[in-house]
Amino acid sequence: MGSRRFDFRLRVPYAHVDKMGIVYYAHYLVYFEMARSAMFREAGLPYGELESRGILLPVIEAHCEYRKPAGFDDELCVTVHNFEQRGAVLHVEYEVKKGEKLLAAGYTHHVCLSPRGKVLKPSPELKRFLE
Amino acid sequence: MGSRRFDFRLRVPYAHVDKMGIVYYAHYLVYFEMARSAMFREAGLPYGELESRGILLPVIEAHCEYRKPAGFDDELCVTVHNFEQRGAVLHVEYEVKKGEKLLAAGYTHHVCLSPRGKVLKPSPELKRFLE
Amino acid sequence: MGSRRFDFRLRVPYAHVDKMGIVYYAHYLVYFEMARSAMFREAGLPYGELESRGILLPVIEAHCEYRKPAGFDDELCVTVHNFEQRGAVLHVEYEVKKGEKLLAAGYTHHVCLSPRGKVLKPSPELKRFLE
Amino acid sequence: MGSRRFDFRLRVPYAHVDKMGIVYYAHYLVYFEMARSAMFREAGLPYGELESRGILLPVIEAHCEYRKPAGFDDELCVTVHNFEQRGAVLHVEYEVKKGEKLLAAGYTHHVCLSPRGKVLKPSPELKRFLE
Repeated sequence: MGSRRFDFRLRVPYAHVDKMGIVYYAHYLVYFEMARSAMFREAGLPYGELESRGILLPVIEAHCEYRKPAGFDDELCVTVHNFEQRGAVLHVEYEVKKGEKLLAAGYTHHVCLSPRGKVLKPSPELKRFLE
Repeated sequence: MGSRRFDFRLRVPYAHVDKMGIVYYAHYLVYFEMARSAMFREAGLPYGELESRGILLPVIEAHCEYRKPAGFDDELCVTVHNFEQRGAVLHVEYEVKKGEKLLAAGYTHHVCLSPRGKVLKPSPELKRFLE
Repeated sequence: MGSRRFDFRLRVPYAHVDKMGIVYYAHYLVYFEMARSAMFREAGLPYGELESRGILLPVIEAHCEYRKPAGFDDELCVTVHNFEQRGAVLHVEYEVKKGEKLLAAGYTHHVCLSPRGKVLKPSPELKRFLE
Repeated sequence: MGSRRFDFRLRVPYAHVDKMGIVYYAHYLVYFEMARSAMFREAGLPYGELESRGILLPVIEAHCEYRKPAGFDDELCVTVHNFEQRGAVLHVEYEVKKGEKLLAAGYTHHVCLSPRGKVLKPSPELKRFLE
C-alpha cells in the first residue's frame, strides 16, 4: 500500500468511556481493527472472504501510544497510514485523531495463517493489495 | 416521540463476533445505546450535555430477543421506534435489522437521576423531546 | 437442576465501569454467561465440550433488571438459581449480589442447536444435568 | 517493587473469544489491568482509593506480543513481574501463561495525574509501594 492512507470514522459509545470520563485504553485496539477491516472491505478484499478462503491474519504484536484522551460521543478518525510486508509479517500503522488533534498512534503486526495454524505466504490477492 | 422512528447504522467489528461466528449477545445492548445516543444527538439534545447539566438516564431494565444471528462485517440498522414516558420511567424500543431481515428486538427502561442518585422529573428539554 | 443454586464470584474490572462510576449495563449479560459457564464446568459438563460434540446453546432472549449499581473493584456474586427446560427452551435465572445487597436479576433463554442451525432435543448429558 | 512478582488468575469467558476460537487481542489489555488492580489491592493500596484521593494513573503506552492463543474456558495466569518508576513514568510488565506455556507478554506505561490533568509526582504511598 505504501504511502496511501485510509480513513475510518467512528463515534465513541458510552460503553467505551471509563470512570475518568475517557475512552478505556483497550478499545483503541478495536478501533484499529475496525479501520483495518474497513480498509480491506473498501479495497474489494473483505477480511471475511479472506477467512472463508482459509487465510487468517491473527495479530502477533500490538502497540499504542496515548497522547490525548477521547471522550463520549467524540467523532474520531482512525487513519491507516502504512501497510506493508516485512518478511513474514504484515505491519500496519494507525493514527487516531479528533479534528486536527492526534489522540493516539500505534501499530499491529500480523502473520498469514491457515485455519490449522500453518504460516502461509501472502496470497496473490493480498500481495496485489500490498503493492 | 410517539410514532417517529430513528435509524442508526453500524458495521459489526470482528471484536464482537464469537466462536459460533455470530455477534455475542451482550453487544446488542451496546448497539441499543449507540442508537439511543445518536437519536439524542440528532435531536439537538446530546446525552453528554444532559449529563453535564446533572441529568443522568441510567438503565433500570433491559430486554432483548434474538431472532437471527448477525455476523462479522454485516451492516446493521438499529431503529428506535418508540420512546415514551411511562410515569417515572422512560421506555425505549429497538429493532435491529440486516436489510429487511429482523435480527433482534428489545427495549430499555431508564429513570432520570441527579448525580447524587435522586430521582428527577424529566427536565423541560427532555419533556419537549418526548412530545 | 430445580432448586439447586450455583454461585460464581467476580471482581469488577476498571474496563467495565462507565462515566457514572457504575458497571455499564451490557456487562451484566457477560457476568450471567460467566456464571453459566462455571456452573457447566463444575457439573463436569464444560460448555466447550458440548460445543465440540456439536451442541450449541445460543441465547434467544435475555432480560436484566438493575436495582442498585456496582462499582469498580466490587466483589460480586452471581447466583444461578433456576435452570430448567421449558419445551424446547432452556430457562436460566440469575441474581447478582454485593454482600447481601441484590444489585441485579435476570434470565436468559437458550435453544439447543446443531452447528448448522438445526434445533436439537437436549442431549442425554444435558438432560441428566437438567434433572 | 523490583523483583517481586504478582500472580492473578482468570478464566476466559465466551464473550472474549472470536471467530478463530481464540481470545481477541484487545482483551489482553483488560487482563493486564485486572492483574494490576489486584496487585494494588493486595498491597493494601486499592486503585479506587488512590483515585478518590485525586491520584489517577492513566495509560500512556501499551504493548503486547502474542505468542500462543488462549481459548474459551482456559485458566490463565497473568503475572506482573516488574513494576518500577522511570522518571515520571510507571513501567509495568506482564506475562500471560496457561500452565507453563507463555501465551503473551507486554507492558503498560502510566503517569500520575490529578483529576484536572496535572502531572503529579508519585504520592508517598505509591513511592513506598514502588520501593
